[in-house]
Amino acid sequence: MLAFNAQQVALMIQGKVEGDATVEVTQFGKIEEAKQGEISFLANPKYEEFLYSTKASIIIINDSQVLKEKISATLIRVPDAYAAFATLLTKYQELKAANMVGIQTPSFIAPSAKLGAQNFIGAFAAISENVQLGENVKVYPNVFIGENVQIGNNVTIHPGVVIYFDCKIGNNVTIHAGSIIGSDGFGFAPKADGSFQKVPQLGNVVIEDDVEIGSNTTIDRATIGSTIIRKGVKLDNLIQVAHNAEVGNNTVIAAQTGISGSTKIGKNVMVGGQVGFAGHISIADGTKLAAQSGVTKTIKTPNQTLTGHPAADHTTALRSQVYVKNLPELEKRVKELEILVQQLSKKG
Amino acid sequence: MLAFNAQQVALMIQGKVEGDATVEVTQFGKIEEAKQGEISFLANPKYEEFLYSTKASIIIINDSQVLKEKISATLIRVPDAYAAFATLLTKYQELKAANMVGIQTPSFIAPSAKLGAQNFIGAFAAISENVQLGENVKVYPNVFIGENVQIGNNVTIHPGVVIYFDCKIGNNVTIHAGSIIGSDGFGFAPKADGSFQKVPQLGNVVIEDDVEIGSNTTIDRATIGSTIIRKGVKLDNLIQVAHNAEVGNNTVIAAQTGISGSTKIGKNVMVGGQVGFAGHISIADGTKLAAQSGVTKTIKTPNQTLTGHPAADHTTALRSQVYVKNLPELEKRVKELEILVQQLSKKG
Amino acid sequence: MLAFNAQQVALMIQGKVEGDATVEVTQFGKIEEAKQGEISFLANPKYEEFLYSTKASIIIINDSQVLKEKISATLIRVPDAYAAFATLLTKYQELKAANMVGIQTPSFIAPSAKLGAQNFIGAFAAISENVQLGENVKVYPNVFIGENVQIGNNVTIHPGVVIYFDCKIGNNVTIHAGSIIGSDGFGFAPKADGSFQKVPQLGNVVIEDDVEIGSNTTIDRATIGSTIIRKGVKLDNLIQVAHNAEVGNNTVIAAQTGISGSTKIGKNVMVGGQVGFAGHISIADGTKLAAQSGVTKTIKTPNQTLTGHPAADHTTALRSQVYVKNLPELEKRVKELEILVQQLSKKG
Repeated sequence: MLAFNAQQVALMIQGKVEGDATVEVTQFGKIEEAKQGEISFLANPKYEEFLYSTKASIIIINDSQVLKEKISATLIRVPDAYAAFATLLTKYQELKAANMVGIQTPSFIAPSAKLGAQNFIGAFAAISENVQLGENVKVYPNVFIGENVQIGNNVTIHPGVVIYFDCKIGNNVTIHAGSIIGSDGFGFAPKADGSFQKVPQLGNVVIEDDVEIGSNTTIDRATIGSTIIRKGVKLDNLIQVAHNAEVGNNTVIAAQTGISGSTKIGKNVMVGGQVGFAGHISIADGTKLAAQSGVTKTIKTPNQTLTGHPAADHTTALRSQVYVKNLPELEKRVKELEILVQQLSKKG
Repeated sequence: MLAFNAQQVALMIQGKVEGDATVEVTQFGKIEEAKQGEISFLANPKYEEFLYSTKASIIIINDSQVLKEKISATLIRVPDAYAAFATLLTKYQELKAANMVGIQTPSFIAPSAKLGAQNFIGAFAAISENVQLGENVKVYPNVFIGENVQIGNNVTIHPGVVIYFDCKIGNNVTIHAGSIIGSDGFGFAPKADGSFQKVPQLGNVVIEDDVEIGSNTTIDRATIGSTIIRKGVKLDNLIQVAHNAEVGNNTVIAAQTGISGSTKIGKNVMVGGQVGFAGHISIADGTKLAAQSGVTKTIKTPNQTLTGHPAADHTTALRSQVYVKNLPELEKRVKELEILVQQLSKKG
Repeated sequence: MLAFNAQQVALMIQGKVEGDATVEVTQFGKIEEAKQGEISFLANPKYEEFLYSTKASIIIINDSQVLKEKISATLIRVPDAYAAFATLLTKYQELKAANMVGIQTPSFIAPSAKLGAQNFIGAFAAISENVQLGENVKVYPNVFIGENVQIGNNVTIHPGVVIYFDCKIGNNVTIHAGSIIGSDGFGFAPKADGSFQKVPQLGNVVIEDDVEIGSNTTIDRATIGSTIIRKGVKLDNLIQVAHNAEVGNNTVIAAQTGISGSTKIGKNVMVGGQVGFAGHISIADGTKLAAQSGVTKTIKTPNQTLTGHPAADHTTALRSQVYVKNLPELEKRVKELEILVQQLSKKG
């Protein structure tokens, strides 16, 4: 655990110390739960009451914050407490990562593998022939990297990740634990007797720069060519990306979503959790999909918000839901009309 | 494989032996499939026919069971055959676990890690700095435990599990293979150019006592504070629990369900498979959710049974399904009314 | 990387070389993207234009293909270019696998484990007591195989797979990275105080011949007896198969589908992605289920195509969707009828 005093923290976020500048912290905490030795922040006025009761040793607050009572914690004042706290968290993680260098033993590194500077290879990591790692690559324990895999600079691969042969990973990529990159696409050709013949999957997966992938997500290699995750994409946990799919720049996809084979998701798309995409379709840039939607057709018009199965315009879908809810009422009205019309007919 | 004779089994479940008390078994089997050397039970009268044809060497039966034919297997009579069989299975697993003690090599145990008594550390397990393990902790091969993780007593961690730094696990917890505890929450702030800035995730995951977690489930660490799995919770396989979520005491969740960020599930809730929960909502104690439901709003009234997307009262939802099914009929009735009314109008 | 010249490739697929028979290739590529040193094929006339612009060194084409321009690449002519290419891919993978033999160190192999001929055991693989492996079994790094597991011939187990004790795997089986075979079924009996008592899961998983399992899929062991994956089944990624379920011969299931406990899927069934099956039901042979369906009841009639939640006949379900979409229109017609009938009533 790294320790910092209030003066050091203030330097990192360009703030002004009020109180004891020598008090030390080793942990981050929420203002309502923080304990001694922890640093917290106050940005949302809703939480102001905790400012006077928290046990945090240091609190980052806005320059504009007026104090109603005396506070025992050391304060650090900044123009924007939330932004300053986020900056601090990022710097803390960078410092921690910078300390993680070297090769733990035993690990398995094939003779032809090339490692860059400032690398970390954890115990029981297996790095196969002809693998190329850039600089500042952190490979946690129990990771497997297959033959000919190329990885850029500033990449973190968490424990248990498996990267199959021939895949390519860009710069500034993070892959969380248990994710599988480059397993075989699901391709089988039916035979006359009802059994299936495997279609060999010999393409790869290409992950561009600035991508983050959650835990236990699976991205299958292409049959031929590449399954592509474009620059800046963020994938959550337990997502399935099938063979030859492509996810466009800066698209964000929540957990448990599945993308079928050869489907192409555009740029700046936002996808909720548990969404399903059929195969061989394309999704326009800027599309927003509500959780649990099912997308069965190509979406050509950009920037729509869609929901439901099959996915439809959000407003229309919500209106349909209301109509369905009111069906018993509608049926009652039809029944009443039938009685009235029958009476009128008799009269007539 | 452990072997027991009928006399030893009878002692374990306080039953009375009928037949050869020296016959040995090494496996458990269903009465309709059991082979020689296996032990089985008969509780459900539906299966009585198999009592006379089974090849099981030992059968546990109810005191009240009347035999219609002679049986070659050794019988053990007890007041409740099903309960006695379950007791036997549990004792068998405890005996097996008690035999599992020691440290396989190579494994990686950081110098500052503290191990309790009766621990097992499997080959290729990696235990980081400042980890604390209680007594009777079984860590299977290829497990990764990050820095500062605290684990209680009587905990079993199956192969390939990854526990990130700072997480806390209580007593009597079982985590099945491939589950990921404490990976980063999915937090990214949009930037002006359409790309995203990572929000550091520096909280942790707290798992309380008596929790069981299935295989390949993912539980993300909180941004700040803790993602919490309360006492007695049972999670199935491939479940996603997002950052800052909380699952209440004795709640049971089936496979492939997803819980979004900051959502709070109450106590004694039962959730079917493939259910999705939106973020920042809370679910009342005792709620029951049918499989594939989508919960988009806070549920305040306890003990409701809900289904569908968006989740609605089970009875109402089923009624809606019937109305939707009858829509062609309703449309026909409206058409007939239109014709009748047109005729009446002409007459009028 | 293996290298072949055009003459060698032609021999493997029984084709005729046109051009330089000594040109070498080391990679496969799509005709529209292929680079020098790569081999490609042309089967679909839609792609003919690329035949004249591709940089591929070798192209496999149909005997019937007429050339409109001169081509610099070496051609190999065959009766069916697509089939020949698939044959080549398969032979390539077989050659690669045949080269993978031996035991990497360190790995953990229990003294009582039995290994067959032509086996490969990767670094950090852990093979427990009484495990039996057939011939030509490839165990990649970081795999865990529990006690008494039996595995047939020609089996490939990718990195990070976990197979719990007592499970049985047939011949010609492939299990992709991170899949978990034989974790505990989700069985808990409610107690009077609202907490749950674990029901021990002491059965196993049986995987028959010719099965392929994707990555991060979970198959739970039976409570007693076996969870069974029959001959020729193909499972995609992130699938959940619960305890005591059975999947019939040559059934194909797409990613993220979940099968609840004791459910029996028939033969030659095709299941889309994200489908859910309730527990204790059975699905007739030849059933086809659309993606995201929810199957709540037994399906007795074979060879139906079903969709939706609850799953219904595909045509009926699509018709229901149209009726729901037209509900606003229907409501409007009822409103107009009400006005007309009111006017008629007044007149009357």
